[in-house]
Amino acid sequence: MGGDHGPGVIVPAALGALAQFSDLNVTLVGDETVLAAELARHPAVDEGRLRVVHASQCVEMDELPSQALRGKKDSSMRRAIDLVKAGDAAACVSAGNTGALMATGRFVLKMLSGVDRPAIAAPLPCTNGHVYVLDLGANVASTAEQLLQFALMGSVLATAVDGLERPRVGLLNIGAEEIKGNDLVKDTARLLSNSDLNYAGYVEGDGIFKGHADVIVCDGFVGNVALKSSEGVAQMIGQFLRDEFQRNILTRVAGLIAMPVLRALRSRIDPREYNGASLLGLRGIVVKSHGSADETAFRRAIGVALAEARMDVPNLITARIESLLAHKDAV
Amino acid sequence: MGGDHGPGVIVPAALGALAQFSDLNVTLVGDETVLAAELARHPAVDEGRLRVVHASQCVEMDELPSQALRGKKDSSMRRAIDLVKAGDAAACVSAGNTGALMATGRFVLKMLSGVDRPAIAAPLPCTNGHVYVLDLGANVASTAEQLLQFALMGSVLATAVDGLERPRVGLLNIGAEEIKGNDLVKDTARLLSNSDLNYAGYVEGDGIFKGHADVIVCDGFVGNVALKSSEGVAQMIGQFLRDEFQRNILTRVAGLIAMPVLRALRSRIDPREYNGASLLGLRGIVVKSHGSADETAFRRAIGVALAEARMDVPNLITARIESLLAHKDAV
Repeated sequence: MGGDHGPGVIVPAALGALAQFSDLNVTLVGDETVLAAELARHPAVDEGRLRVVHASQCVEMDELPSQALRGKKDSSMRRAIDLVKAGDAAACVSAGNTGALMATGRFVLKMLSGVDRPAIAAPLPCTNGHVYVLDLGANVASTAEQLLQFALMGSVLATAVDGLERPRVGLLNIGAEEIKGNDLVKDTARLLSNSDLNYAGYVEGDGIFKGHADVIVCDGFVGNVALKSSEGVAQMIGQFLRDEFQRNILTRVAGLIAMPVLRALRSRIDPREYNGASLLGLRGIVVKSHGSADETAFRRAIGVALAEARMDVPNLITARIESLLAHKDAV
Repeated sequence: MGGDHGPGVIVPAALGALAQFSDLNVTLVGDETVLAAELARHPAVDEGRLRVVHASQCVEMDELPSQALRGKKDSSMRRAIDLVKAGDAAACVSAGNTGALMATGRFVLKMLSGVDRPAIAAPLPCTNGHVYVLDLGANVASTAEQLLQFALMGSVLATAVDGLERPRVGLLNIGAEEIKGNDLVKDTARLLSNSDLNYAGYVEGDGIFKGHADVIVCDGFVGNVALKSSEGVAQMIGQFLRDEFQRNILTRVAGLIAMPVLRALRSRIDPREYNGASLLGLRGIVVKSHGSADETAFRRAIGVALAEARMDVPNLITARIESLLAHKDAV
């Protein structure tokens, strides 16, 4: 049980999720002594829907994925993914080492047929709700065929989780005109145009947050930079706001008066509300929580996993891939 | 004379800059009838430092660079760059078509010796001031050698404009650890480590805004996405703030009280304060203003060009390139 906070955050988050979702069962995987001690602090537990599976090891946050895979066969991460593989759990949620989670997920669960590589997808806030962006960094380079697969997986996610019938798929580019962009983007645009997806054309960086699409596809390097740049700007603006309201006694009073409004603003862009990135393309559901997630944020990641499990997202992706291939054959 | 607003914004901005900078001379390049009419609206002009050069054509904002280059030999853009080439102007500032400006700049001025490709560099706000980021979209793909050249040019800019003796150069990546990133980033890191630049290591997207470096280097596709994503988030937060303060009578009153603080915040992240992107690597100074720039923003772009002209940035780049090559031979 990893992440920056470990069981002290994850156990109460899991118990909160059990209270919130009546169709949820939780298996806590980790050091059973530590987990028992943490559970003892929460006496009002519904034990019928909770179990503990012991794991003697823990993957460190800075450990190389290959080391974790070879050397930590009894890690909480490995055990949790093994449970998914065995059908003993419908999904795995982890706040641990992203690289190790991906490598272990691929090794144990394997890729879905027709999907070359996993992608990390997460919702980002936009002016009219949220937009799924992928890949956010599972890969440092991708082919056009792979970006097409990502588009399809993102579409399935938007349909399964948000109920959108024909999610609009945008392709992240550095200009909205046809002539702009690199070869990868142009090739991908061609594939998307010829697919049965609801392709909405190029989207620029600022378009992510303007609701121009329901799903936005990009390679993992670009997606990760876009995600983290956005987080950085939001943090900087938050910092500047705090600075300015702290400047003197008058601004402090103004800050007190504006507090409810600022809280409302915060809740609309609170990264905790968007916690829970989906590792798509695996034969099983794996959701990555931010390492620094607090209880609210981790519970939200559990909610993401539950939503995907309810709809059986991996099977939906397989069905869509088959339909894509059939469409391609027909064209 | 291009951009979204044309002479109606650019002429008053130029007159404002003349009043602000006593060592500035301005040549307005465009349709002389239009310019005369616009100038007639500002009678208190210091005519000793202002001249008008007629150009019969104007490059459209959506025109293909190749078309502009071939078909618009008497465009205001072409004439302005011709003046720089002839030594009749120390710099060209344009709010017009970026692609055409770059193509015309390269065609007329040529590249500096030792520089393969131009790069677009601009300052972005960060928690402790600003950081120069390049390339912001002059190229859709670059080699490690080219990114090294960009790093050098960005360093020269930070030294010339901000007086930093040894600007810290960061390399944009998707993780701070050595093993992260794609081949381009790893190769560039090696070149930067072996150069005489003050290389500060990898910077993630959020690090742009945390003041982790004075200059951040990336390829043009990634840089453009990072820039526009950041702008998009800032705009979205601004929109959410307005929404929340408009929600009801109480929040409106809170908004009035908080207004001075919100204005102070705005001035710290006002994109107008950061207007003026430098096209580095050419044998002459070319500064690109945002197409939608207002008078304040365009005046700021003129200020950027003036600062570069005062320090003769192209010559400084040439000197640094020679020192880099000498360092490389010595290693």
